[in-house]
Amino acid sequence: MNRPDASLGACEAARAIREGALTSEELIEACLARVRAAEPRVQAWSFMDEAHALAQARAADEYKRSGRSIGPLHGVPVGVKDIIDTADMPTENGSVLHAGRTPRADASVVSMLRAAGAVILGKTVTTEFATYSPGKTRNPHDPEHTPGGSSSGSAAAVAAGMVPLALGSQTNGSVIRPASFCGVYGFKPTHGLIPRSGVLPLSRTLDQVGVFARTLEDVALLAEQLVGYDEKDPDTKPRARIPFCAIAAEEPPVEPLIAFVKTPQWQRADAETKEAFAELVDALGERVQEVELFPSATEAWDWHKTIMEAEMAFNLDAEWRRGRDGLSKSLRAQIERGREVRAVDYQQALARIPLLQDGFEELLVMHYDAILTPCAPGTAPKGLDSTGDPSFCTLWTLCGLPSLSLPLMRGSNGLPLGAQLVGRRNFDGRLLRTARWLVGRVGAGV
Amino acid sequence: MNRPDASLGACEAARAIREGALTSEELIEACLARVRAAEPRVQAWSFMDEAHALAQARAADEYKRSGRSIGPLHGVPVGVKDIIDTADMPTENGSVLHAGRTPRADASVVSMLRAAGAVILGKTVTTEFATYSPGKTRNPHDPEHTPGGSSSGSAAAVAAGMVPLALGSQTNGSVIRPASFCGVYGFKPTHGLIPRSGVLPLSRTLDQVGVFARTLEDVALLAEQLVGYDEKDPDTKPRARIPFCAIAAEEPPVEPLIAFVKTPQWQRADAETKEAFAELVDALGERVQEVELFPSATEAWDWHKTIMEAEMAFNLDAEWRRGRDGLSKSLRAQIERGREVRAVDYQQALARIPLLQDGFEELLVMHYDAILTPCAPGTAPKGLDSTGDPSFCTLWTLCGLPSLSLPLMRGSNGLPLGAQLVGRRNFDGRLLRTARWLVGRVGAGV
Repeated sequence: MNRPDASLGACEAARAIREGALTSEELIEACLARVRAAEPRVQAWSFMDEAHALAQARAADEYKRSGRSIGPLHGVPVGVKDIIDTADMPTENGSVLHAGRTPRADASVVSMLRAAGAVILGKTVTTEFATYSPGKTRNPHDPEHTPGGSSSGSAAAVAAGMVPLALGSQTNGSVIRPASFCGVYGFKPTHGLIPRSGVLPLSRTLDQVGVFARTLEDVALLAEQLVGYDEKDPDTKPRARIPFCAIAAEEPPVEPLIAFVKTPQWQRADAETKEAFAELVDALGERVQEVELFPSATEAWDWHKTIMEAEMAFNLDAEWRRGRDGLSKSLRAQIERGREVRAVDYQQALARIPLLQDGFEELLVMHYDAILTPCAPGTAPKGLDSTGDPSFCTLWTLCGLPSLSLPLMRGSNGLPLGAQLVGRRNFDGRLLRTARWLVGRVGAGV
Repeated sequence: MNRPDASLGACEAARAIREGALTSEELIEACLARVRAAEPRVQAWSFMDEAHALAQARAADEYKRSGRSIGPLHGVPVGVKDIIDTADMPTENGSVLHAGRTPRADASVVSMLRAAGAVILGKTVTTEFATYSPGKTRNPHDPEHTPGGSSSGSAAAVAAGMVPLALGSQTNGSVIRPASFCGVYGFKPTHGLIPRSGVLPLSRTLDQVGVFARTLEDVALLAEQLVGYDEKDPDTKPRARIPFCAIAAEEPPVEPLIAFVKTPQWQRADAETKEAFAELVDALGERVQEVELFPSATEAWDWHKTIMEAEMAFNLDAEWRRGRDGLSKSLRAQIERGREVRAVDYQQALARIPLLQDGFEELLVMHYDAILTPCAPGTAPKGLDSTGDPSFCTLWTLCGLPSLSLPLMRGSNGLPLGAQLVGRRNFDGRLLRTARWLVGRVGAGV
């Protein structure tokens, strides 16, 4: 393979490296060249040490030359959101309060990536503490527009072709929304599948690690490396490795049936989005049915807010006590609201989650293979003061359901518009399979 | 076996039934005769239907005669605390608000007992909602003294020889304290070992099911039937059955080393108790060392109160809203304090538990086989207005450590005084084995 291209997918790159057609060093060189070209405009990275990235690549090549067996991501670069600890790079959590912070240990997911052979290319920009106050990143499709957040840099770096894979996280809409705005695949697996130790804790109930890639195959390849039990994350369970790549590649045994769910947020969607979804539903024909949610789902947004703010107030207590002048006004207000939440209301909100999950379990076991719904009210809004509206992601995050952002459409402004596909809890592989069927049926539009 | 005696132990009874030397009907008749004789004085039962108990016994005998294989508790009676649901008997939770309540399904532990062949003899008295306001039960050793609580009836019924086995529960000191006051063995296994679905929920973090018996072998036999995964109790985990009976019967490979821990509550203990423990420590000689706890343990009582009151306020919300006039003044006050707890303080208290557990893990892995400590400040206090002081149980309940009450001593008033033995989390079998060694060494005193 001559002239490796930074836009090479992860599956292709891993295969080429495995077969000796490409070295990791060549691939990383190509990615770094692309970073040099695009970064001034996109600003996706909070930390990048070219020499260190190349040293990892050369070590990977050396290792392979020694003849030892290599992992599924051997030599392949991954960008890591800067709320995920890395022992060899700073992790600043998007806050001046953590400037210069260098963790002593890798997060579990980073250890898993290294065990799979990956090269950690650098750290990608996050909003302030993975909440709403934006970082420096711009939308690669139009730098006057937000890339979305909080996993802004991960989505933008993958979209800009700087790296084939990146890790992000979602507590409300922080994977699905930026993936939609940047026109890449975003995947937030079932809560509890991917361990979070070493990832900035905001909300034990809501925090979930997610991934970005430019193809569904690459999503499956990356996610497959990250599932596991971690005794330091009490929400993970001992379980067998899930063969995401194999399941995603299967043909569905029967044509999937999709539930189109507008959610109580539908009035927030702009006219163009409503029209795009009408067309998408039309294209799917008899394989999609519009479904109205059970009434209790309408309260999910309040419960999510209670839980997120109460848990953030707990997790950011030291920052609030010692450094509240270094917090954005909006985050300070969130924490202050969170500090006032009563334990009874917090417990009541938590207790609703299994009831909602039961409702979706019935919908997704008895009737439908997946739920189709918007990722956001529209394409990436203009301006860099906000990362956009997460409300189309809230319900699925609260329930810990696996969800995907599929880059299927474009707005009249030329910016990408994703479609969100939500699956049954712990059936993430099937969601990827259904997504591949859907993309094949309607065609990727971006 | 002629003239079965109600004071027969469960292991002996199960063996005699298995071998055909005794029928369940004979055993239940003997227990009922003992109930008739002692109940007017002890008042241990909130529900007892003699005909129904006998019908269960006859069905057990019939089943055995059919030649089918039988369970480890076949035909053996068990008393069940009246906060544990039974589909065939009322479950009134010790409150006028739940008078006449008849659950539709058995609690998981009741199903497990029935699967093991047990006869549910009746429901035993609990304090109001398993908290501090006493029921009608009296101490079988002296009816002017409290039996302790909240598992008052279970402890008293076993102590009075009405039933060899009973189920209780502990959120603070509700198994260990009444076992000590009534002079029987009480065992509260590691949090998460015994499923709690169908048991009145007061506090997910603190509630634990426990057992009462008159011998350690019987404790092991009953506990062995109750360990299991239950998807309706999120704190249970899939795990293999634990052979408590076999482990408890082993000789320790080396003589155990015991940590004697006075705890910050020591000044509450009366002079006689302090003296009794000095003698016990003396009798154990070089196999016991006094250990001072790490400083953070002193705050555990505050954290326990925060968690218990906040979770009780959540779980008894409907009772407080609709029926607070039917609650005791002290319970109402607890709930009202719980309603004021802030979610941040609640989460902070929860977050301390793993840190305390790490401290005990180090103590119990590196240095000692078990911790020896009082069950209560002294023997059962005189009077029936209070169930006594739970504070010597609080720390171990908070940490979910397995603990045993061993009926080793007596006060000068002739009333029993237990010694508490606390073990490493998830090493409950080893705790039983260490307890058997300790009892063999110093001799049961009751």
